[in-house]
Amino acid sequence: MTTDRATVIPALKNIATQLRIDSARSTTQAGSGHPTSCFSMADITSALFFAEMRFDPKDPHNPDADRFILSKGHAAPILYAAWAEAGAFDRSELLKLRELGSDLEGHPTPRLPFVDVATGSLGQGICAAVGSALNARRIKSDYRTYVLLGDGESAEGSVWEAANVAARDKLDNLCGITDVNRLGQSQPTMWQHDMGQFERRWQAFGWNTLVIDGHDIAAILDAFEKARSTRGQPTMILARTEKGKGVSFTEGKDNWHGKAFKKDELEKAVKELESQMVSGVTVKAPDLIRKPQSTSRPAETAKALPAPNYKLGDQVATREAFGDALAKLVVADSRIVVLDADVKNSTYTDRAEKVAPDRFYENFIAEQVMVGAAMGLSARGAIPFASTFACFLYRAADFIRMAAIGSNNIKLAGTHAGVSIGEDGPSQMALEDLAMCRAEPSFTVLYPSDGVSTERLLALAAQKQGPVYIRLSRPKTSVLYTNDETFTIGGLKVLKESPDDVATVIAAGVTVDQALDAHKKLKASGTSIRVIDLYSLAPVDRDGLLAAARATKGRLITVEDHYAAGGVGDAVAEAVADGGFTVHRLAVREIPRSGKPEELLDRFGISSSHIVNAVTSLVGAVAAR
Amino acid sequence: MTTDRATVIPALKNIATQLRIDSARSTTQAGSGHPTSCFSMADITSALFFAEMRFDPKDPHNPDADRFILSKGHAAPILYAAWAEAGAFDRSELLKLRELGSDLEGHPTPRLPFVDVATGSLGQGICAAVGSALNARRIKSDYRTYVLLGDGESAEGSVWEAANVAARDKLDNLCGITDVNRLGQSQPTMWQHDMGQFERRWQAFGWNTLVIDGHDIAAILDAFEKARSTRGQPTMILARTEKGKGVSFTEGKDNWHGKAFKKDELEKAVKELESQMVSGVTVKAPDLIRKPQSTSRPAETAKALPAPNYKLGDQVATREAFGDALAKLVVADSRIVVLDADVKNSTYTDRAEKVAPDRFYENFIAEQVMVGAAMGLSARGAIPFASTFACFLYRAADFIRMAAIGSNNIKLAGTHAGVSIGEDGPSQMALEDLAMCRAEPSFTVLYPSDGVSTERLLALAAQKQGPVYIRLSRPKTSVLYTNDETFTIGGLKVLKESPDDVATVIAAGVTVDQALDAHKKLKASGTSIRVIDLYSLAPVDRDGLLAAARATKGRLITVEDHYAAGGVGDAVAEAVADGGFTVHRLAVREIPRSGKPEELLDRFGISSSHIVNAVTSLVGAVAAR
Repeated sequence: MTTDRATVIPALKNIATQLRIDSARSTTQAGSGHPTSCFSMADITSALFFAEMRFDPKDPHNPDADRFILSKGHAAPILYAAWAEAGAFDRSELLKLRELGSDLEGHPTPRLPFVDVATGSLGQGICAAVGSALNARRIKSDYRTYVLLGDGESAEGSVWEAANVAARDKLDNLCGITDVNRLGQSQPTMWQHDMGQFERRWQAFGWNTLVIDGHDIAAILDAFEKARSTRGQPTMILARTEKGKGVSFTEGKDNWHGKAFKKDELEKAVKELESQMVSGVTVKAPDLIRKPQSTSRPAETAKALPAPNYKLGDQVATREAFGDALAKLVVADSRIVVLDADVKNSTYTDRAEKVAPDRFYENFIAEQVMVGAAMGLSARGAIPFASTFACFLYRAADFIRMAAIGSNNIKLAGTHAGVSIGEDGPSQMALEDLAMCRAEPSFTVLYPSDGVSTERLLALAAQKQGPVYIRLSRPKTSVLYTNDETFTIGGLKVLKESPDDVATVIAAGVTVDQALDAHKKLKASGTSIRVIDLYSLAPVDRDGLLAAARATKGRLITVEDHYAAGGVGDAVAEAVADGGFTVHRLAVREIPRSGKPEELLDRFGISSSHIVNAVTSLVGAVAAR
Repeated sequence: MTTDRATVIPALKNIATQLRIDSARSTTQAGSGHPTSCFSMADITSALFFAEMRFDPKDPHNPDADRFILSKGHAAPILYAAWAEAGAFDRSELLKLRELGSDLEGHPTPRLPFVDVATGSLGQGICAAVGSALNARRIKSDYRTYVLLGDGESAEGSVWEAANVAARDKLDNLCGITDVNRLGQSQPTMWQHDMGQFERRWQAFGWNTLVIDGHDIAAILDAFEKARSTRGQPTMILARTEKGKGVSFTEGKDNWHGKAFKKDELEKAVKELESQMVSGVTVKAPDLIRKPQSTSRPAETAKALPAPNYKLGDQVATREAFGDALAKLVVADSRIVVLDADVKNSTYTDRAEKVAPDRFYENFIAEQVMVGAAMGLSARGAIPFASTFACFLYRAADFIRMAAIGSNNIKLAGTHAGVSIGEDGPSQMALEDLAMCRAEPSFTVLYPSDGVSTERLLALAAQKQGPVYIRLSRPKTSVLYTNDETFTIGGLKVLKESPDDVATVIAAGVTVDQALDAHKKLKASGTSIRVIDLYSLAPVDRDGLLAAARATKGRLITVEDHYAAGGVGDAVAEAVADGGFTVHRLAVREIPRSGKPEELLDRFGISSSHIVNAVTSLVGAVAAR
């Protein structure tokens, strides 16, 4: 590692030029991409990778390595070029950019070992960076987190959610860089090169700000140093840059966003860039890299939980069982962290806060940064549980989509699902959350109906690698399972069965009690039904469902406190389709309204009496055929 | 209308007290609600309704009436109390708060004529207010838009998206009030009573700010006046208030969020409040209201579009056909407005901007305010088309949920759907957008496959009252329809049929070309299939699908550029389930990656060769049974 500036700066300049050349070549080879968005950040990237960050290109996951998150993910080619330049892989790989066989995708994903979270949906990287910075505190490491944003990206509200949380948490181990290159995709950005617009905003949000010329290597190095020595505040480096910098026909020019050079343009560009190479530089890029220092720290603890402690028939809301189970989990496993968005007294995560306040992160009413920070935490070894009302998790739908793409190890819990919340009305009722999470191929989706299953499934969620969603309910429901009952991801429970069952009713969550009530009512009139608690919706127990269908004359009725599309009914229907079975669905089919929970279950067609009617008419209809 | 302050202020004080009493009584009667969140804003509400706003309680939709949007929707009881006090309905109705039979729901919805957009998911009302303010310009009315936010709510990123857009558009007809009552749901807010935190932020975002005591009626009136006389800037009144104001045991006290008074608490509270009534006030509340002045303006124009002008077999991307059709629509119909989030050169809405720049609203990279502003515009008579890449509409999922609740007349177009976008990779591929929009019962979901159907469906979308989603594709596809072809919402097109069809392939969007290609390949080997273009996914043509199922031995294959859950397959499966038919689904079943469009269609199982294989194996399997 060389630190003498007279030696380093020419080397960094040449590296920046090389990164521009590599970005141009790879995008032209791919036939698409954003070379000019790479050019504006080339000097920053060079300085960051080869004079500032401490990392090991051969061990990107090193727990003490500084992190770099490219929030403006469309500049992926220069990220890849920088890692190639650092020696992480051979430069020739760069020419496979955007090819089906290559992990060097159009926008970065964690398929690459040096990418923590998928970016490309703007305004998310900085939220993940908050999580990464929080994790450094958790593991008592001095690693720093760097995140580079675009100027256009700064219009995303999520950026300001992250700004608030980072300042409140005094994350001085977090350093943002905004690449203010003036030009958005379709026109100049809102604030163009008016650096004061950026400065005022970041200062108002509590950040240390440094306005620099983003093409002046010495200024960039100074800014990183100042950021490093600032205590009690995150720093945002506001770098004035030119889009397309370094090539005369693109520098500061309109209409070059997202356009790869044609072959002849490439030749011209490379020639121009090569002419900028400072001669006489002998130091090699990899030799400039600062290496991370390992910190000795206690190993993570991960004890198994004791069995739950409920009494059959007791009335317990699954949201409360969640809060209690989470408080146990957070004590048993040092990797567990808890994130809230100002509803901890309704989701009962305040109980986890009480026992592990240093692993509880309050985001106030800002769901996007809550989920984004969870993504960043998970990328660094934490197991984050982020929770709020299920309907407000929907605010972070696009983060959930990106977490699915990155297969981040986040655990989301949505409470107050469905019309069963009652009087608060439709704005507080999640009726599309299962549709959201089931849509994502990498998500596990769980929906416990009682206290015991909630506690057991929560423990399974913590162990399961990858994103998990747990749906929870507001009203109290009956404890159905004994404390030694076991559950599996992808399982179901047959709660009632007899050889005479005329139909299977498949319920989940609050509708399980309704199905059991329907079972009782029907039994009184001499009709037996099978009742299934489908607590795992993704994956779903196809064989178990098919077996029930075969045993009950193919009559399947699903009942769910969710809209008709995307939930329990669709999950069952797809699982049994190849068996030739169809499903009769009871679900919420109109915009609901305020009322008492029991009234609403009935009004919107998912109460026990509707189940009874559905069974009766299904049996009658088939008999009448 | 009395304007003498010595007369007005005591009257407004008493009205504020009455609003507190009404909020307390109604929530106690309901057994739930947020009385203390109402108390903090009672003085502001009184001054706003009875000394500032120009409106007619009997004609809330008056196009020149000032608007009030309660962004902190949980304070609904005081909104209802104010309208009752104004004479919109009888005060006795207030005691039906949150009952199933009443439109006075837990949080406001447009079921009430004086509510423009549903609120209750925080941070959305101010986005809608931006749209309302933009509409005043469109119709050349001097009506003003007022929006009241909570302080906790200000942590939502969407608030700052709205702040940017409102300042950039110099919306001086927009006045925000932040009720800084210090206490959130679960704990004090991030900034508590540090008014400078709010002031710095709003000023940095370009707003005129006024910090006042939110319980000082004279100060409130002054602030409204200053806001009204400020030119070129929206104003944010930052009102320092006490949560629970007016009742000694709640004022500024913790742990009162979202709690109705018990009967005995109510009696105590009402007694205290009644003792604050100023005696000798004779002026009646309704007499204080300022009435709106009608403006004469040209009637809206809404001409029918001429027929499309495509040539069979030409290659046209539906996103481009959308841009062209929108440019025609915006000229034909003065109600049409267009909203963008810095992708207008990819969605081709720049063509609409060119012909109607004054009805084109650029939101830069901020999808939440784009959709929220569309909601506000639609509530005031505009027909807004908001568009971006379909995957980025997902950023506004919670706004879309609330628009569905309010059944707002918004039109959303999502371009670049599916893996067929190719090289940009998964972060840019919408594969859950159909799941999102199909989940909402009030949404119409359309998915054209060619230029002609795009243009026709766009015109239908504009005419259809209520929220509509149109899914569009990046790659060029064949023009399939003649220019005189007609389409209906809820329809489908049978593109290929013969008496010998062994199966029906149901495609939509980009997969229609694939299905037609499969038809050709199969025909060459002597197998006939029916091919359906399912351009309307919600509602769906159940009869048409059942007819096809019956005609093709119950063999149905869906093929879609969308994840397996929530899309075309699920839509068809539910439609035909009661007929006893099941569906074989071809869909994207894993997280995709970068590659060429054609490669990806094949890699992820939705190309013509996969359709051929599915037909062959389905026919073989059934034959072998």
